[in-house]
Amino acid sequence: TRPKRIAVLPGDGIGPEIVEEGVKVMKAAGERFGYHFEIDFGWIGGSAIDRLKNPLPQETLTLCHQADAVLLGAVGGPRWDQHPPALRPEKALLGLRKELDLFANLRPTTLFPGLEDSSTLKPEVLKGVDFLVVRELTGGIYFGEKFTEDTPAGEKATDTLVYSETEVERILRRAFDIAQLRGKKVTSVDKANVLESSRLWRKVADRVAKDYPDVELTHLLVDNCAMQMIRRPADFDVVVTENMFGDILSDEAAILTGSIGLLPSASLGEGHQGLYEPVHGSAPDIAGQGVANPIATILSVALMFRYSFHDDTVAKAIEGAVTDTLASGARTMDLVSTGRLAYSTEEFGDKVVEAL
Amino acid sequence: TRPKRIAVLPGDGIGPEIVEEGVKVMKAAGERFGYHFEIDFGWIGGSAIDRLKNPLPQETLTLCHQADAVLLGAVGGPRWDQHPPALRPEKALLGLRKELDLFANLRPTTLFPGLEDSSTLKPEVLKGVDFLVVRELTGGIYFGEKFTEDTPAGEKATDTLVYSETEVERILRRAFDIAQLRGKKVTSVDKANVLESSRLWRKVADRVAKDYPDVELTHLLVDNCAMQMIRRPADFDVVVTENMFGDILSDEAAILTGSIGLLPSASLGEGHQGLYEPVHGSAPDIAGQGVANPIATILSVALMFRYSFHDDTVAKAIEGAVTDTLASGARTMDLVSTGRLAYSTEEFGDKVVEAL
Ligand SMILES: CC(C)[C@H](C(=O)O)[C@@H](O)C(=O)O
Ligand SMILES: CC(C)[C@H](C(=O)O)[C@@H](O)C(=O)O
Repeated sequence: TRPKRIAVLPGDGIGPEIVEEGVKVMKAAGERFGYHFEIDFGWIGGSAIDRLKNPLPQETLTLCHQADAVLLGAVGGPRWDQHPPALRPEKALLGLRKELDLFANLRPTTLFPGLEDSSTLKPEVLKGVDFLVVRELTGGIYFGEKFTEDTPAGEKATDTLVYSETEVERILRRAFDIAQLRGKKVTSVDKANVLESSRLWRKVADRVAKDYPDVELTHLLVDNCAMQMIRRPADFDVVVTENMFGDILSDEAAILTGSIGLLPSASLGEGHQGLYEPVHGSAPDIAGQGVANPIATILSVALMFRYSFHDDTVAKAIEGAVTDTLASGARTMDLVSTGRLAYSTEEFGDKVVEAL
Repeated sequence: TRPKRIAVLPGDGIGPEIVEEGVKVMKAAGERFGYHFEIDFGWIGGSAIDRLKNPLPQETLTLCHQADAVLLGAVGGPRWDQHPPALRPEKALLGLRKELDLFANLRPTTLFPGLEDSSTLKPEVLKGVDFLVVRELTGGIYFGEKFTEDTPAGEKATDTLVYSETEVERILRRAFDIAQLRGKKVTSVDKANVLESSRLWRKVADRVAKDYPDVELTHLLVDNCAMQMIRRPADFDVVVTENMFGDILSDEAAILTGSIGLLPSASLGEGHQGLYEPVHGSAPDIAGQGVANPIATILSVALMFRYSFHDDTVAKAIEGAVTDTLASGARTMDLVSTGRLAYSTEEFGDKVVEAL
């Protein structure tokens, strides 16, 4: 079979270290399951600003366009925080999403056996938590017109939240498609009692739901959803919402189980191409020390097999290898209790490869 | 002294029952501390739609304009859910906020001793939780231009988020003023890495902070804040944010301690006038049965004394009476464990009056 072209963008902070382990596991899985990879590295974020004065250089974009999948580490750090908006690392994320038309961001929230203690929620509340936030990623207030005017009474700033029926429909269909393969429940989150865009969203959700008679649709207002996730997280299956609400709710969802450092994400478009990255950030404070936790990146590689190569077997093998490694007692620094020995980023990656 | 004019708006569902207890405690506190009240009742929400075909009738508005303070029960219910936006109960809330220029919504999050079990968070995480969300209430995307267009590719919906420097400054000053009387920490929440309005917000926050050298200002991105509230809720003191983020975060904050049914709120403008209402909704399923919990309404009355009459002594007396009543073992239906006897709404109100 044709080799898979993978664009690898290590980024800033701990990005390079964790991506190295992700690539290692990807190659090991490839060897075992008969995949060949052509890997191209690209600059992105702060490190691209430093070298090329552009958080998302054209050559990186080209590389991503040509790739079957993109593996991203993390971007950002205090060094670039004072830059003007156009020269900030996160601009690269927004640009990449838009350019590759990655309109569906998938963020699973799961519980890692043995790590329940790291959650601030009670164990009995966490039992059975396993849901997925599907966030619209290329529309809404992130990409609407925005400007600041000078008025006699001071500055006035405007952001615009726009959604077309087409944009809303494709993300909702994606959520229903995914729900059909999972628990067959979709929670559509909006603020239909206030926002015009939410009323469109709700109408389209009701229409799309008719094509999925086996999936149960519930509407929830965003304020209520923020509560219910804390109140009864185990009741959710697929939560679908627009860009800004999704930003807030997917982070809220990620912290619930206490394993935000371990969670992967996938950003998908219409085709098979996808961008895979850990949910956590670039952690500049521990960068370069070889102590970062590579699990989220390794699990992002699993999602790559699942969503871009449609190979659930390999995805499950990688996920199983991570679970087995954790079950064997291996822990990176962020997860050890005092008095126990921690594995380095590299050692942990090696363990996963072994388990695979 | 001149009698205080209070506009009382019972609203829908359990509204009338809980407001009755609120008024009872208000009168009792008045007798003990030398206040006189002139009370006017007004229709609002669904019950106003039913009677006057308008969720916020002009006569109710006039009444509120003339009042020193407004006590509101709750609005809404399934009966009006299919109405067009202009004829829905929540329209009354938005209208009242705007008409009375109540730009600052205050929502305290506190832990009630003896009720820790009702939270889904671990007790050790809840220890010391005591913060206040200050939400901008009359600007932003709630009140910006909104419309839906028909395009060849289907409908397109637009909402607009607008903030002027003046609007941002007054809510931030309010938050700093309040923080000075509390823990002297302000967390300003925005999405400055994406929104133009948030960049204005952050700039104004930094400027206002200079006038409050004794208050510590921290900026937090809204997605991060949604996480940190779950991770380390005891670290917050005053959290200030724009309307939509405040809607989400204040509900998230309210559920943390498990006592959302017990939490009061105050909505304030430039002067002394204020609107006081429980955070919980109209609970139509238990309406008219005399089993609703009146605590949030009674504590809203305490906030009325604190913020509209600037009388912390009476506010504390009412709050103390609620604590004492709970400490005596009195519980309404929502709080009893199985096998224990519950007080009715009215009995609980009587107990609080007694304790007072
Ligand atoms: C960095 C920022 C622009 C980004 C977002 O808000 O989308 C991040 O928070 C995320 O969720 O990926
Ligand atoms: C009913 C609704 C319009 C309202 C809001 O979003 O402001 C409510 O959720 C609240 O928080 O008071």
